[in-house]
Amino acid sequence: MNSKKIPQAVISRLFIYLRELTELAKVKITTISSAELGDRTNLSDAQVRKDLGYFGNFGVSGSGYAVNELVEALEKILGKNKVWNVALVGTGHLGSALLSYPGFKSHGLNIVSAFDISPKRIGKAIGDIKVKPLEDIKKEISGKKIEIGIITVPAKSAQSVCDKLIESGIECILNFAPVALNATENIKIRDVDLSREIETLSYFLVNKK
Amino acid sequence: MNSKKIPQAVISRLFIYLRELTELAKVKITTISSAELGDRTNLSDAQVRKDLGYFGNFGVSGSGYAVNELVEALEKILGKNKVWNVALVGTGHLGSALLSYPGFKSHGLNIVSAFDISPKRIGKAIGDIKVKPLEDIKKEISGKKIEIGIITVPAKSAQSVCDKLIESGIECILNFAPVALNATENIKIRDVDLSREIETLSYFLVNKK
Repeated sequence: MNSKKIPQAVISRLFIYLRELTELAKVKITTISSAELGDRTNLSDAQVRKDLGYFGNFGVSGSGYAVNELVEALEKILGKNKVWNVALVGTGHLGSALLSYPGFKSHGLNIVSAFDISPKRIGKAIGDIKVKPLEDIKKEISGKKIEIGIITVPAKSAQSVCDKLIESGIECILNFAPVALNATENIKIRDVDLSREIETLSYFLVNKK
Repeated sequence: MNSKKIPQAVISRLFIYLRELTELAKVKITTISSAELGDRTNLSDAQVRKDLGYFGNFGVSGSGYAVNELVEALEKILGKNKVWNVALVGTGHLGSALLSYPGFKSHGLNIVSAFDISPKRIGKAIGDIKVKPLEDIKKEISGKKIEIGIITVPAKSAQSVCDKLIESGIECILNFAPVALNATENIKIRDVDLSREIETLSYFLVNKK
């Protein structure tokens, strides 16, 4: 299995399967067919089989997937059985919002450091975290074993922050700045477009009658 | 076609198809098969056909989909050929971040009003928008023909804001508060969990070797 070849969209769907299977395990459902899992996640059975097929042969022909085993396998594949330390750069409105956003922790993501370049923001506490100057980033990242970086700076500073994170040893970046970032292939960058969250609403408006 | 029966996940994928098809139309590609469209969007051809099948019979057997026609049809289905007026309630960090976030407009979403209950925030301008007191919401929503509401208040106030938006005539709500909201069936509420955006990164960390 080569993770480089597996598309982001497949990974996102694995998280959806895992959430559904975890709910099923809670109510003591022990097996599920690809068709049922597809129904519950609004995907075709072929899609479910194809996605899971990237990672091994989980199903038993005729009886479907063993729920508990599949939960365990997916948690391992997805790194959900670990807690990751995260650094955030840019403590403007969006960065501050993310720092005080609940839910990261329950997803195994622990924001342990925040950085800024503004003297007005450095030294301030947001939640439990004291904002540090950007110069300290390399030291912090190795000292605190940080493996994920979040970029919440304006578009014009995003590339230089990205370079700094990579220089400091970060290989996974979540980018909220509305700009495409350049990095070598071994670096994983995920761009978040908040406006995509809202665009699907327009469908319901035109079809509400 | 009954829009109530079409799952949110299908709608989200239609937006993905539309983005891909729009890119193809730009480079003068005129037809595409479901398999190719699936490849480009990391979905199986069966999934593409099933999703589009909810809305009609777009493909021509043997030759695939006509790109321009499908773009036009999807834009209409998804309400992308219109601009929607949006109101935002809660101008803390997250609300302020969304108000100054570029990209909503290019998705046909025009945030025209913002509301708060804090006297410190009322009257302030964020970008072009002056924050108004929550009491004015009904008047603003009918006066400005607002059809979508965004909730960015703390969890404990989210339900009362939701009720107020509905009372004022809003039928589509995007909820960033980390709490489930109650509303009658005709109201469309979409919950956004920002931590889901980051969780897929853990996969790349465990599989980066």
